[in-house]
Amino acid sequence: MSLNSFGHLFRVTTWGESHGPALGATVDGCPPGVPIEAEALQHWLDRRKPGQNKYTTQRREPDAVEILSGVFEGQSTGTPIQLMIRNTDQRSKDYGDIAQTFRPGHADITYWQKYGIRDYRGGGRSSARETAARVAAGGVARAALDAMVPGLKITGYMVQMGPYGVDRTQLEMAEIERNPFWTPDAGAAAQWAEYLDELRKSGESVGAVIEVTASGLPAGLGAPVYGKLDTDLAAAMMSINAVKGVEIGDGMASAALTGSANADEITMGPNGPDYSSNHAGGILGGISTGQDVVVRFAVKPTSSILTPRASITKSGAPIEVVTKGRHDPCVGIRAVPVGEAMMACVLLDHLLLHRGQVGEGLRGKIG
Amino acid sequence: MSLNSFGHLFRVTTWGESHGPALGATVDGCPPGVPIEAEALQHWLDRRKPGQNKYTTQRREPDAVEILSGVFEGQSTGTPIQLMIRNTDQRSKDYGDIAQTFRPGHADITYWQKYGIRDYRGGGRSSARETAARVAAGGVARAALDAMVPGLKITGYMVQMGPYGVDRTQLEMAEIERNPFWTPDAGAAAQWAEYLDELRKSGESVGAVIEVTASGLPAGLGAPVYGKLDTDLAAAMMSINAVKGVEIGDGMASAALTGSANADEITMGPNGPDYSSNHAGGILGGISTGQDVVVRFAVKPTSSILTPRASITKSGAPIEVVTKGRHDPCVGIRAVPVGEAMMACVLLDHLLLHRGQVGEGLRGKIG
Amino acid sequence: MSLNSFGHLFRVTTWGESHGPALGATVDGCPPGVPIEAEALQHWLDRRKPGQNKYTTQRREPDAVEILSGVFEGQSTGTPIQLMIRNTDQRSKDYGDIAQTFRPGHADITYWQKYGIRDYRGGGRSSARETAARVAAGGVARAALDAMVPGLKITGYMVQMGPYGVDRTQLEMAEIERNPFWTPDAGAAAQWAEYLDELRKSGESVGAVIEVTASGLPAGLGAPVYGKLDTDLAAAMMSINAVKGVEIGDGMASAALTGSANADEITMGPNGPDYSSNHAGGILGGISTGQDVVVRFAVKPTSSILTPRASITKSGAPIEVVTKGRHDPCVGIRAVPVGEAMMACVLLDHLLLHRGQVGEGLRGKIG
Amino acid sequence: MSLNSFGHLFRVTTWGESHGPALGATVDGCPPGVPIEAEALQHWLDRRKPGQNKYTTQRREPDAVEILSGVFEGQSTGTPIQLMIRNTDQRSKDYGDIAQTFRPGHADITYWQKYGIRDYRGGGRSSARETAARVAAGGVARAALDAMVPGLKITGYMVQMGPYGVDRTQLEMAEIERNPFWTPDAGAAAQWAEYLDELRKSGESVGAVIEVTASGLPAGLGAPVYGKLDTDLAAAMMSINAVKGVEIGDGMASAALTGSANADEITMGPNGPDYSSNHAGGILGGISTGQDVVVRFAVKPTSSILTPRASITKSGAPIEVVTKGRHDPCVGIRAVPVGEAMMACVLLDHLLLHRGQVGEGLRGKIG
Repeated sequence: MSLNSFGHLFRVTTWGESHGPALGATVDGCPPGVPIEAEALQHWLDRRKPGQNKYTTQRREPDAVEILSGVFEGQSTGTPIQLMIRNTDQRSKDYGDIAQTFRPGHADITYWQKYGIRDYRGGGRSSARETAARVAAGGVARAALDAMVPGLKITGYMVQMGPYGVDRTQLEMAEIERNPFWTPDAGAAAQWAEYLDELRKSGESVGAVIEVTASGLPAGLGAPVYGKLDTDLAAAMMSINAVKGVEIGDGMASAALTGSANADEITMGPNGPDYSSNHAGGILGGISTGQDVVVRFAVKPTSSILTPRASITKSGAPIEVVTKGRHDPCVGIRAVPVGEAMMACVLLDHLLLHRGQVGEGLRGKIG
Repeated sequence: MSLNSFGHLFRVTTWGESHGPALGATVDGCPPGVPIEAEALQHWLDRRKPGQNKYTTQRREPDAVEILSGVFEGQSTGTPIQLMIRNTDQRSKDYGDIAQTFRPGHADITYWQKYGIRDYRGGGRSSARETAARVAAGGVARAALDAMVPGLKITGYMVQMGPYGVDRTQLEMAEIERNPFWTPDAGAAAQWAEYLDELRKSGESVGAVIEVTASGLPAGLGAPVYGKLDTDLAAAMMSINAVKGVEIGDGMASAALTGSANADEITMGPNGPDYSSNHAGGILGGISTGQDVVVRFAVKPTSSILTPRASITKSGAPIEVVTKGRHDPCVGIRAVPVGEAMMACVLLDHLLLHRGQVGEGLRGKIG
Repeated sequence: MSLNSFGHLFRVTTWGESHGPALGATVDGCPPGVPIEAEALQHWLDRRKPGQNKYTTQRREPDAVEILSGVFEGQSTGTPIQLMIRNTDQRSKDYGDIAQTFRPGHADITYWQKYGIRDYRGGGRSSARETAARVAAGGVARAALDAMVPGLKITGYMVQMGPYGVDRTQLEMAEIERNPFWTPDAGAAAQWAEYLDELRKSGESVGAVIEVTASGLPAGLGAPVYGKLDTDLAAAMMSINAVKGVEIGDGMASAALTGSANADEITMGPNGPDYSSNHAGGILGGISTGQDVVVRFAVKPTSSILTPRASITKSGAPIEVVTKGRHDPCVGIRAVPVGEAMMACVLLDHLLLHRGQVGEGLRGKIG
Repeated sequence: MSLNSFGHLFRVTTWGESHGPALGATVDGCPPGVPIEAEALQHWLDRRKPGQNKYTTQRREPDAVEILSGVFEGQSTGTPIQLMIRNTDQRSKDYGDIAQTFRPGHADITYWQKYGIRDYRGGGRSSARETAARVAAGGVARAALDAMVPGLKITGYMVQMGPYGVDRTQLEMAEIERNPFWTPDAGAAAQWAEYLDELRKSGESVGAVIEVTASGLPAGLGAPVYGKLDTDLAAAMMSINAVKGVEIGDGMASAALTGSANADEITMGPNGPDYSSNHAGGILGGISTGQDVVVRFAVKPTSSILTPRASITKSGAPIEVVTKGRHDPCVGIRAVPVGEAMMACVLLDHLLLHRGQVGEGLRGKIG
């Protein structure tokens, strides 16, 4: 019951602080025989890497992942896979102020209150840098999923930045790779670029909503009550830094629907049941239907901003806090590959759980 | 790693089907010496009980809880507490149709596909009746919390029904106990009564949003990354039947905020840090701040409605489904005590976890 | 992480006290579609039932098991199976002495010290009655194993009582069902009968060694380090009341062997590898070889005896303790079906774990 | 539910193979504020290090531990502590034979059968080298125990080598540090030196029995049924490579005792209950009594020996196996610090568990 772990059979424990020697993920339960190369994992890490454009922090970290165990001659052995990322950009600088002060909206104060000690350098364990380890672990999960469920596709993208949402009639998935915001709405990308430029210059930050979908997933993943697929997805996404809300399918908007509007009608298709709509986000009773699994989460704005905010010091004295330095005006951007990684980890875990309890494939036939 | 369990140190496993002999909760990890009486647990169950007014299902179940173990002479012994609720309203009726048909928007089809067998009577394991066991377990958690954190108060209430939200300027907490919707907005209650009457008559249903707050909680509960208080709250709420979205503090609306608007400013109060606002919902970096913990979740409308919906049978033939019988037009109403119960379970669990790793109280002093 | 649970995917939580209303087992993770009838479970419980002959306690409990959930139309549904056994022999008697006194060698004192409260009636949670719940859960595991591994056979028997061991050259498995000690050595059975008669008359008790074997188990079950098959077997057996030692294969005697004597030689048989001997007890590196799995455990003598022993009361005053009433002179006898049940639970759990991570069957072929 | 993890609140996951780039332990749940230095951990690792005398393998590994996370300015922060040990002695040699052959008594064959892939270099994950990671984690546990339970002392030592046991009347604890076998019996040390010399020269190996005691432990650690202190100790010791038997207190010999001989009598001492003897090994009903906790485990002889043994290759062909190279004639020697480390991990875990559920100290007073 490690508090820094997630997953049941495919179990990931992340470790490390932002400015310590290294951080990483201990990945246990990967099926044997999965092709795993550091280069393939690096591909995913590079998508999350800071400093790639003017909209993300200028901190430069190669985020190079090393595989220390569990892989032999390019394949997983079934034993724990240790993924390590060295922290290279550890400038020796004066952290005096940060050490004695609590930034409003930041975990500084709660870590201090709880533990009585914290690695204040760069946020320590509460830094968004922790998510690099998740992305590396997600790369392992993706490799296993590729082997087990050919055709499964996980796609993350931004659907809202600050007050500006995408136009759902204008989404083109190929667009995602063409703009710095990973959004399928080219119009929104243009609008956000302008908006974010201004925010960045004024030292402000802003929130965002990310959507992650999985298509090609078989029906039958998940289990009742606390092994629900949506329970685990909710936990996975909410555990990402700065996330404050999670939705499955229609999410919070479900509240406004009537029963007849909400119930996705079923027909018999050539390959099994077909659905007229997907309000449920691909999950009924906690178990996947075979439709696209759709998850959304809201990322709050970075609390590290240039605008002065009132706070206190460790001794309780009032102070005005201004956070200088290299920070993301919209951390939500870099949360896109993180959300994808968490989706991959949860899906693989549930595939293994299903296979463990029920066996390969589905037990109940239709038609 | 039971898929029907939740919690780490305070661990609840629910069991049972809607129309089997009984259902209940196995509660492990309760501290010893907590006063626990069946009557006190019954108090919470009665709030969730169906048939109390015209807005909830007319199924009549006394939902009487029996304590089978773990309590001796009115106190918890520290060993597992078994809470059992007999199912009394098991009419012998013809379930033939339900057994062969999948209701749109219901777990019928996924349970069948996954397991190849399901107790179709009343929804079996996927029935909202399962939440009675959670409410009973939540009663145990409340008793332990009362002993450990005097002054802690958990309050659940409805803030939206269908398209109609409460007026946040008009909330009066005493109002919650005065209307059948557990809402603190008397005006909304009147509006919803009319709205729901019409829906009920037309055989329709509708969704809702529930908010649950905890005041008087100490700072320091929660832990990094996957032991985050908000991670566990998100999982707890998402595991409730029909829930499709979970929010902490400002939730999805955080996306629209700027960093300066979002960062709750800190001052030094007489009893420790004070905050100018609570966008964070009482949780920073996964750890409680001492402010009110604020969680919201959306409940989708019941899929059991009179409006005919297209579906298929087990043999894949098309069929129109109409669900007659006694159903809640707005299941969200009865989700209020369930949300409170889950909050109680999660908070007690994190109190025990904190005490286990860190000891009594906070380690970091301020001022 | 319930402290009253065991197993990973097939997870059993036992609950209940000796003289409370009931006790039982919450069994989660059973594969769906397994034929389960109360009568079949009762078969195993009856083997453990007290009062069957003069060598076991004369307490008369029918130990009738009720299935409250998770089974529908005679088959497991994949959801939690609740097994309940009512306590019927709850004589209202004066427990005054026991409540204030600690029996030497008994858990009275540690439960009191830890929790500050204990259900002293009949030993409460520490009573050997708890093992009835394990036997019921083991019946579920056996049913699942029967379906998954035809030909698997689990056999428990006594190999030592007090100072008298069996003659390994004289074992005949059919003999096990013919004597009250479940021993395959008819000569030992005769000797023990005489020995135990005398002990019983003098109000004494004695320890025993039980061996449990599983034949027909496939190779490949278990996993490195802490998922070792022998790790879980050791924990399972040591968790049984009064057990003080556990051995796999040659066990403690391995210490006296040389490497050449200990290494079971391998040849190629018609159905895969064959072994010249089985010092390893069917497990290498924590993973099953396909040979018989062999586990032994020692059960200490009951501390409830007529011989007076020095002890103290709750107030710290010296007292002489004599435990009258109905007690087993050799609790080891009734531990035989319990050991079998634990073996069944562990093996099923590891079958599911293997299938979850690796898939059906073995991945590495030989020959 | 990582299969390479142990512990509940203090949770250790080991990772790494014998000849991969590194191995280590991810340690989660350590209380904050514990003084931890790499030098202190190194002290324990050095005791287990090979090549220190002629009785252990001549493989030379510095086994230098690096702390990668979770420690800040010399103190634990409460977040995961990553301990890494680089493998430096990775000679590039021809492993061709080992890759295709299964050593009798070794995990080669089961790893292959299960996973279809194995890192055969030096035994890969099944190598005793894995225990270095446990010793490092045990060092963290010791540091936390020192802070929480001053006066607690954990002592491991050898009590049997091959057929030769210690003379219990001749034990002197100071002797442990004076001989290469960590035994408190100087006479036995002399006898074993001669015996092992001969075995080593003939390319043979032999088993051993290790005893580990903990004195100064408070009463009240442990919990019923599957959270028993002895259950976790049994699992911890059995999970060590080559261990085949575990005993608590009198262990297997309990079987030969009568109830009156076995029941440790209780008197009232100046600091609480006193016991006339310790057959129970300091644990009653799974909960510590405050007496010395006494655990023993048997280590089988290394299967890597010069004596030829019959085996098969991957293709099923017969082959004679002789294992040349640097191997321990008695691996039991180096299991002493490993057993101590496991004891430390289990005790700390149970201290935290007790504090979590019950609070600081004992709830039930005596006298």
